[in-house]
Amino acid sequence: MKVGIIGLGLIGGSLGLDLRNCGHIIYGVSRKESTCNRALKKEVVDYADINLKSLSTVDIIFICTPIGLISQTLKQLIPHLSKEVIITDVGSVKTCIVKECESLWTNFVGGHPMAGTAEQGIEAAQKNLFKNAPYVITPTEKTPENSMKILEELAQSLGSLVYTCSPEIHDQSVAWISHLPVMISASLIAACSEEKDKSILKLAQQLASSGFRDTSRVGGGNPELGVMMAQYNKTALLHTLQGYSQQLDEITEYIKTEQWDSLQKLLMITQQERSPFIGIEKNS
Amino acid sequence: MKVGIIGLGLIGGSLGLDLRNCGHIIYGVSRKESTCNRALKKEVVDYADINLKSLSTVDIIFICTPIGLISQTLKQLIPHLSKEVIITDVGSVKTCIVKECESLWTNFVGGHPMAGTAEQGIEAAQKNLFKNAPYVITPTEKTPENSMKILEELAQSLGSLVYTCSPEIHDQSVAWISHLPVMISASLIAACSEEKDKSILKLAQQLASSGFRDTSRVGGGNPELGVMMAQYNKTALLHTLQGYSQQLDEITEYIKTEQWDSLQKLLMITQQERSPFIGIEKNS
Repeated sequence: MKVGIIGLGLIGGSLGLDLRNCGHIIYGVSRKESTCNRALKKEVVDYADINLKSLSTVDIIFICTPIGLISQTLKQLIPHLSKEVIITDVGSVKTCIVKECESLWTNFVGGHPMAGTAEQGIEAAQKNLFKNAPYVITPTEKTPENSMKILEELAQSLGSLVYTCSPEIHDQSVAWISHLPVMISASLIAACSEEKDKSILKLAQQLASSGFRDTSRVGGGNPELGVMMAQYNKTALLHTLQGYSQQLDEITEYIKTEQWDSLQKLLMITQQERSPFIGIEKNS
Repeated sequence: MKVGIIGLGLIGGSLGLDLRNCGHIIYGVSRKESTCNRALKKEVVDYADINLKSLSTVDIIFICTPIGLISQTLKQLIPHLSKEVIITDVGSVKTCIVKECESLWTNFVGGHPMAGTAEQGIEAAQKNLFKNAPYVITPTEKTPENSMKILEELAQSLGSLVYTCSPEIHDQSVAWISHLPVMISASLIAACSEEKDKSILKLAQQLASSGFRDTSRVGGGNPELGVMMAQYNKTALLHTLQGYSQQLDEITEYIKTEQWDSLQKLLMITQQERSPFIGIEKNS
C-alpha cells in the first residue's frame, strides 16, 4: 500500500520504519524541511515533503500531529485528496477528535497506538515501538467497516495488541489508567512542596526513595501533555477525579476515626485489585 | 562491641551480617528456635537464643521487632539488663515509640534505617542492605549524647547516610514521602476498581501500562504495613492527607473551570519540584 504519514515525530517516524519494513511505500510530510531530510536519511520514509499535496495518491494517511492540530490538519489535507482514502489519527483522546474528523471526512477511522518513550521527535523514532503494545481502534456507527479492517490489519502487522471499542469507552478507560494518575501524582508533588516547615521539607527530599519516586513519576512529566489530556478528555477525567476524591475521603475517614479493620480490608482489596491491571493475566 | 539484636528478620538479620563483618560480636534473639538456627547457619549472629536474658552482657541492643511490639519487648527486656546498655530500635515511626521507650529506659536512642526489599524474614537478610540508604537517628532532649554518638558511628560503619532530627520531624517527613503515597496510591486502585461500566473497567485493565503500574505500586503493597503506618503515624499522616486533598481540589477546579494556564503553571512547577526528591542533588 501507499501510506501517508503526517508528522514525523516519535510516533509518525516509528510507524514509518515498521510499515516500510512490511513492504509499504511511505510518503512522509513534515512542516520542516530538515525533518524531511532526516526522515529520508533514517529510512523512515520513501518520500518526504513539506506539502500535503504530496499525499494525493496514497491509500491511507496517518495523521500523527499533536492532538490539537489533528482536525485542522485534516481540513488542510482534504482539498489535496482526489479519492476516498482512509484517514486515521494517533491521538491519545478520541471522542472529540473522531466526532470532528468523521464530520469532515467519511472514510475516517480513529486510532490510538499506546506506545511511547521519554524521548520525542524523529531522532527518537525506532523499530518495533508498537510491538506488544495496545493499539486501540475506535469506530463509530459511521465508520466504514472495510476501512476499519484495513487499519486493524496494519496495526496487527506492527505486532500491536489490537482493541476495538467506541471513542467514549476508550476515553473513559484511559482517563482511569493514564490521565487520572497524572493529576493525583502531580498533586502529591505539589502538596509535599507546600510543606511550610522547611526542615521537614528538606528531610523529606533527602529521605524520599522508590515509593515516592514511583508515585510521583507521571506527575513530574511533560506539562503540555498533562494539560492536553485535561483539555481533550475533560468530562471523562472529571468523572475519575470525582470517584477518586470520594475514595480518598473514605480512606481519610478510616484513619481519622481509627477504623483499622476497614482500612486493612480496603488495603487487602487494593492489593488484589491491582493484579489485573499489571499482572500476568495481561498479554503486554 | 557486644551487640544484641532482637528480631532476626530482614532488618535484624541484615544488621547482624554487617555489624558482625565490622568485628562486633552479635547476640541474636528470636522467638523461634528455628530462626535462631537459621541465623547461626547463615552466620548472621555469633550466638542465638530464644531468651532475652541472653542479652544481659551486651553493650547495645537493636530492637528489630514489628513496630507494635517494640515497647512491650523493651518492658520484657529490662529485668534481664544488669547495666545501662544502649537500647535502640528500627521502627519506621518514631514519636510514639521514642516517647514510650525513653520513659522505660533512660539510655534509649530512636533510630530508623530506611532500607528494605520486597522479601521479609531471616532468609531475605543480606549484606550491605543499609549501604547508601538513609539511617535516621531521632534524639530528644533526654537522649544521652554519648549513646547517640555510638549509634551514629555504628550506622556510619554500615555505609548508611546518617540524618539526625527530632522524632516529630522524622514522622512528618516520612508521612509525606512514604505513608501519604501509600494512601493516594491505594485510593487510585480502589477508585478504578469501582468503575461500574464493566467494559470500561476491562479495557482499563488491558490498557494499563507503566504510568498506572508506577502510580499504583505502593498502594498494592502489604496491607498490614499500610495499617501500621496509619496507626502509628496518624497525626502526621492526616496532616499530609489534608494538604493533599486541598491540592487535588485545586487541580480539579482548574479542569472544571478550564483554567488551562493555571494547570500548565502547576504542572510546570511539579515537574521542577520533583527533582530535589529524586534528583542528582541527592546522595542516594
